[in-house]
Amino acid sequence: MYEENNVFAKILRGEIPSTSVFEDDNALVIMDVMPVSNGHCLIIPKNPSRNLLDASPDNLSLIMPIVQKIAIATKKAMQADGIIIQQFNEESAGQTVFHLHFHVVPTYEGQKLSRHSDKMADKDDLKRLAKLIASQIK
Amino acid sequence: MYEENNVFAKILRGEIPSTSVFEDDNALVIMDVMPVSNGHCLIIPKNPSRNLLDASPDNLSLIMPIVQKIAIATKKAMQADGIIIQQFNEESAGQTVFHLHFHVVPTYEGQKLSRHSDKMADKDDLKRLAKLIASQIK
Repeated sequence: MYEENNVFAKILRGEIPSTSVFEDDNALVIMDVMPVSNGHCLIIPKNPSRNLLDASPDNLSLIMPIVQKIAIATKKAMQADGIIIQQFNEESAGQTVFHLHFHVVPTYEGQKLSRHSDKMADKDDLKRLAKLIASQIK
Repeated sequence: MYEENNVFAKILRGEIPSTSVFEDDNALVIMDVMPVSNGHCLIIPKNPSRNLLDASPDNLSLIMPIVQKIAIATKKAMQADGIIIQQFNEESAGQTVFHLHFHVVPTYEGQKLSRHSDKMADKDDLKRLAKLIASQIK
């Protein structure tokens, strides 16, 4: 069941702020405020669904090329060694905001990921990274 | 760069065995032989690419509805509490087979995931689970 007052719905409606990387008709891309690595960002489809399980297949087909575009740009911008794509469904899987979203997590040789809840990122840092990633989107 | 003798290419060509859950024109779905949880399966697109970064956007759009279908069937068949979708790009992200694939990982309240390299699953167990998941595919 989709609940309209989740944090990402509020961000999509402009009711609360976020650090935007990219936006088109189908998705908003923002920096994760509790990054597990430097450059961690989120792809949020504008079409509402609770998660992958109740999304329309068409919406998923629209979103994946955007996930790819952001993954490529993030790897390049951050000079990362790899990229993990993660998408969590329901609480036991680690979902905390119940609006479908995809994590794009850059990885770096010899660096472990942080835990998601470890700490809030510095806002100016996130703005700088968002700009850097945006500059590499093709 | 795509290397034609990776394990999943060999499985797709029928050169080595796997425990199949589902197959259509676009993808093969198999049980992971080193599951991080009970019911862990893999969606392997037939169109070759090294990972998400070099895949064709059209191929990704084709594949995601299959990932969703398998996620829904796996959650139901396994009576799981949640589903994690994971997709790894390059070694530092944990990619070990260099043919694009998506992990569908069921999660269960109060159970931690195993490490991917912990141990090989029992083949008969995998066959039983594959049949169970296949029976729930719509």
